[in-house]
Amino acid sequence: MAVQSVAIIGLGLLGGSIGLAIAKHCSDITTTGYDADPAACEAARTRGLADVICDNAADAVAAADLVILCVPVGAMACAADAIRDALPAGAIVSDVGSSKQSVADTLRAALPGAVVIPAHPVAGTEQSGPDAGFAELFEGRWCILTPPENTADEHIQTLCAFWESLGSTTEIMDAQHHDLVLAVTSHIPHLIAYTIVGTASDLEEVTRSEVIKYSAGGFRDFTRIAASDPTMWRDVFLNNKDAVLEMLGRFTEDLTALQRAIRRSDGDALHELFTRTRAIRRSIIEQGQDR
Amino acid sequence: MAVQSVAIIGLGLLGGSIGLAIAKHCSDITTTGYDADPAACEAARTRGLADVICDNAADAVAAADLVILCVPVGAMACAADAIRDALPAGAIVSDVGSSKQSVADTLRAALPGAVVIPAHPVAGTEQSGPDAGFAELFEGRWCILTPPENTADEHIQTLCAFWESLGSTTEIMDAQHHDLVLAVTSHIPHLIAYTIVGTASDLEEVTRSEVIKYSAGGFRDFTRIAASDPTMWRDVFLNNKDAVLEMLGRFTEDLTALQRAIRRSDGDALHELFTRTRAIRRSIIEQGQDR
Repeated sequence: MAVQSVAIIGLGLLGGSIGLAIAKHCSDITTTGYDADPAACEAARTRGLADVICDNAADAVAAADLVILCVPVGAMACAADAIRDALPAGAIVSDVGSSKQSVADTLRAALPGAVVIPAHPVAGTEQSGPDAGFAELFEGRWCILTPPENTADEHIQTLCAFWESLGSTTEIMDAQHHDLVLAVTSHIPHLIAYTIVGTASDLEEVTRSEVIKYSAGGFRDFTRIAASDPTMWRDVFLNNKDAVLEMLGRFTEDLTALQRAIRRSDGDALHELFTRTRAIRRSIIEQGQDR
Repeated sequence: MAVQSVAIIGLGLLGGSIGLAIAKHCSDITTTGYDADPAACEAARTRGLADVICDNAADAVAAADLVILCVPVGAMACAADAIRDALPAGAIVSDVGSSKQSVADTLRAALPGAVVIPAHPVAGTEQSGPDAGFAELFEGRWCILTPPENTADEHIQTLCAFWESLGSTTEIMDAQHHDLVLAVTSHIPHLIAYTIVGTASDLEEVTRSEVIKYSAGGFRDFTRIAASDPTMWRDVFLNNKDAVLEMLGRFTEDLTALQRAIRRSDGDALHELFTRTRAIRRSIIEQGQDR
């Protein structure tokens, strides 16, 4: 059954982009929106992020057949509480959070009996807030669904069809495997970027002005990632702790080996790694995940 | 005295871009070029990277008043040997290497009596080779000169004016300080990017195909940097060992602190860092070093 009415709870980069993408691609779907921040609701009205911006979450979901929680992972429980009593029977509840096991546990506990299918559109920018969204954010990107066991196929198909209508390609994955994959492709890169930008800000021998002036040597790409929303990312690391620490351990081992190669002037080891990493870049370009 | 004839030794991304930038901005300067790789010379002729592509380095520098060595830092000694006997008296010898103290030592030893002013245009892309260069590479970017003590002001002014004519802003810096600053803004970011891309390629639990598919979560930005020229970067790490190891130590300390914050679920510590790092990004945008 195709989605007819979508409620978007949280109108930042992701929520706003969903509203705009629906308006662009699915003019037959009606949208309602809500954000806990009144200023965000006001901005959402101005930008037309949803057909109707409601004054509370309960009103927003009252007539929805798909509810998408677009709040930081740490705010999922609170958002679920706010919609519990107003949620129509049979409505699908989903989200866009970057970690999935903890979201699945939280929503299952907060919304007993509801149809919950956590999802993660692997798309974003370093911008955040209601002014950051755009209709094309999901086009050509993957959206990973992590349906709990025993979820009816029909509901999974409905959610897949919805994301595909916004231009995404969908994939079904186990929540725990998702958290491991994304630890590598997203969480650790963000953690490293935040760290090096922090390290560079704190040096005594190199001024902040020098760091900024000469950032074109590579550093600037890290600052882009390290400008991402602090609350969202704090919640990701708190809610995907095991996979992040596991992958961080691997990274640190590899970095230590490279440090040793530099100390010992082992040019062959450096050259071998630096050559090997080019292949992955080529595949990413070929598969349209970057230009 | 303004530069009238520039010899470019090494016709990859940097050398080729210098040739094209001169053709665009300084039509009164004649250029000669040479590359140790015959295929690169052929490509350079086709693209017109210099007015004349010579068959050996000595011919290329024979009438030059500015010679720019655009070879990996580890190939400087060899390039200097090849031009020594043909170098006109009074010609300025410079380079574009990413580490400066070792280049200064190498060129001083290889070219006794020559006017050597090492330089580093802080500009580049992940592309390399004679097809990668473009005339606009240096526009709006910094070029750092590290003249040895006792270099005549006149020569420094000549080289500054040359780089400014290509669209760069110049800065004079001590070679050792340059190496420390660039360790932070360029060398460590590259080392980290190479490491995480290597780590991601070697996992058993996550397939390479998954890493590529979901790279839009942050990882893809690291693959871009980790696609840079392996020989150039091997040489940078071998020739700026002390500063790189020093800065790597700081980075590892900070990463370990963050790891501890995650393990202890210290959300405040994470949020504090993630908020602080946004300010640097804003300054980089304001100062035109990224979009």
